[in-house]
Amino acid sequence: MSKKTTIYDIAKALNITVSTVSRALSGFPAISEATRKAVVEMAEKLNYSPNRLASALKSGKTHIIGVIVPSVQAHFFASIIHCIEDGLKDSGYRVIIYQSNESVENEINGVKTLLEAQVDGIMASLSLETQDVSHFQEIIKQNKPLILFDRVNEELAVPTITLDDFKAGYMATQHLIDQGYRNIAFITTIHQIKIFNDRLKGYKAALQDNHLPVLEEYIHFGGLSIKDGRFGAGKLMRLQNKPDAIVAGDDFTALGVIKKLKEINQMPPDVGVIGFANEAFSAYITPNLSTIDQHASQMGKECAKMFLKMISQENPYHNTEHIVLNPTVVERQSSAKLPS
Amino acid sequence: MSKKTTIYDIAKALNITVSTVSRALSGFPAISEATRKAVVEMAEKLNYSPNRLASALKSGKTHIIGVIVPSVQAHFFASIIHCIEDGLKDSGYRVIIYQSNESVENEINGVKTLLEAQVDGIMASLSLETQDVSHFQEIIKQNKPLILFDRVNEELAVPTITLDDFKAGYMATQHLIDQGYRNIAFITTIHQIKIFNDRLKGYKAALQDNHLPVLEEYIHFGGLSIKDGRFGAGKLMRLQNKPDAIVAGDDFTALGVIKKLKEINQMPPDVGVIGFANEAFSAYITPNLSTIDQHASQMGKECAKMFLKMISQENPYHNTEHIVLNPTVVERQSSAKLPS
Repeated sequence: MSKKTTIYDIAKALNITVSTVSRALSGFPAISEATRKAVVEMAEKLNYSPNRLASALKSGKTHIIGVIVPSVQAHFFASIIHCIEDGLKDSGYRVIIYQSNESVENEINGVKTLLEAQVDGIMASLSLETQDVSHFQEIIKQNKPLILFDRVNEELAVPTITLDDFKAGYMATQHLIDQGYRNIAFITTIHQIKIFNDRLKGYKAALQDNHLPVLEEYIHFGGLSIKDGRFGAGKLMRLQNKPDAIVAGDDFTALGVIKKLKEINQMPPDVGVIGFANEAFSAYITPNLSTIDQHASQMGKECAKMFLKMISQENPYHNTEHIVLNPTVVERQSSAKLPS
Repeated sequence: MSKKTTIYDIAKALNITVSTVSRALSGFPAISEATRKAVVEMAEKLNYSPNRLASALKSGKTHIIGVIVPSVQAHFFASIIHCIEDGLKDSGYRVIIYQSNESVENEINGVKTLLEAQVDGIMASLSLETQDVSHFQEIIKQNKPLILFDRVNEELAVPTITLDDFKAGYMATQHLIDQGYRNIAFITTIHQIKIFNDRLKGYKAALQDNHLPVLEEYIHFGGLSIKDGRFGAGKLMRLQNKPDAIVAGDDFTALGVIKKLKEINQMPPDVGVIGFANEAFSAYITPNLSTIDQHASQMGKECAKMFLKMISQENPYHNTEHIVLNPTVVERQSSAKLPS
């Protein structure tokens, strides 16, 4: 790779000062038309890239926002990003995306990479592994907006946009109870992530409010994936006291649960199933999947609005807000025990 | 937003030269330990961000790669990105992603954004709108690697990694013929994109090789989405001479086709359906969807390998290669006319 042309190279080639080159390229009126023309021609000849980076180094504004998500393969995160882009494009901000792939090490690299790319701010949803969040402090230290969404950590005194996950867990469970299910199991992740803990709390509260027992054997801690759903459902359905419904940690896990139930001829809705996230496929599988809509588009829109507010303030962290969105139950066939 | 601290601020605060600050921060041995310590402490006090950008400006190496895709909501592109990341991580390269959302204007902005973010190279798959590809010339001009994958344009003399799309169209059609279907329709995009044109050519060639007529009314030009699939299938099934099978431009379109066929009680495989891309949902819908696997993971791996080769050369465009991958038919229920 050849060395990048700088304004120093142009100055040297024309035997003029760097400052003259800089002012000529910025269109200062004090520069003669002849000089301006000579500089522009030499810049082209030397393949000088007149990007906004040099001025960005001064003003700290590139109009690029970085978004860190666990994975864009989850429709939920892809939708949020889409709505962030939509909400920012009229203001001239563009979005670059970094995936943590659920690894805290990747997430740390993501913060570094995006800051090195001179982004004006970062929005992030934490990886399943993330406990210590000190790698995000550098963003705050640089006085750039940081917004956490969906998977957040309250140690960082930054704005957050979340779903009411306690309510989401409660509503999923209450929906199954309303449909006539009584022995309701719960498949979740072993990772200590607030949103998953809150959903579990909501599940327990709904059972207790309906005077149903909270059974330890009904709570399966594992991973969240199609494979994990199959495994969890298999284990739960081998219990002596089999559950008659399963709340799955996300729609991929719920899909695995449904596959397993079909294999052992306990086809939903005989055994009820509900997931979280309303993924793209959820309406199309058989039986189609009841789920909790997490309002990705609203979450994305709120992220964009919050960023524009923060960037307009001298101190972006003045009046830090925490926005909590309400979940919605999407009723489909997989939980339709009652004749619908 | 406050102004970014520079080495000029540190120099001023300590009343020393900028060069001393720079050398102190870079660990030059000629600088005394006392000065080095003073500089580092002042840098910390003033929140100086010792990023790699300044040195990147000199060497042109940030170890960041930009990937431009139409949308990460398509599993195919998300999978490719995942494998690009995988193939580059041992070499210390990190990936940032930009979505064109099928708009050429966004794509132009993407190239600008990524170059401003000082990426070391760009990999891109073109938007459906892209005809003129001159916005990519700037990357080549900067002597940075540009690789096109899947949706490419031969006007740019850059390495490409593609599927044999003629063969993909041919195989999809031949598969339906082998299953016993004879009146095979084709739903594709109105956009003049090479991969879609090649698939159409493959479809026509397979029909001709099997002595079946190529009927204009069987080729529907529209969009590619669930909605477009429903619309196209509706139109095709209202023809006097109804098709008995449909090749859909991608799996989302095929999903729309299946939905429409179910509504009008022409449940596949009575009418055969095959898609392209083997999306995440394709194995789980009812009937599950036959499709053409485009080998996203291999495409991603080849992109990574190609980039590492290019970046190691003085001229990245020396010996430009064009890698063509072979498609595979994934046989499932939606095309199972024959007893399987």
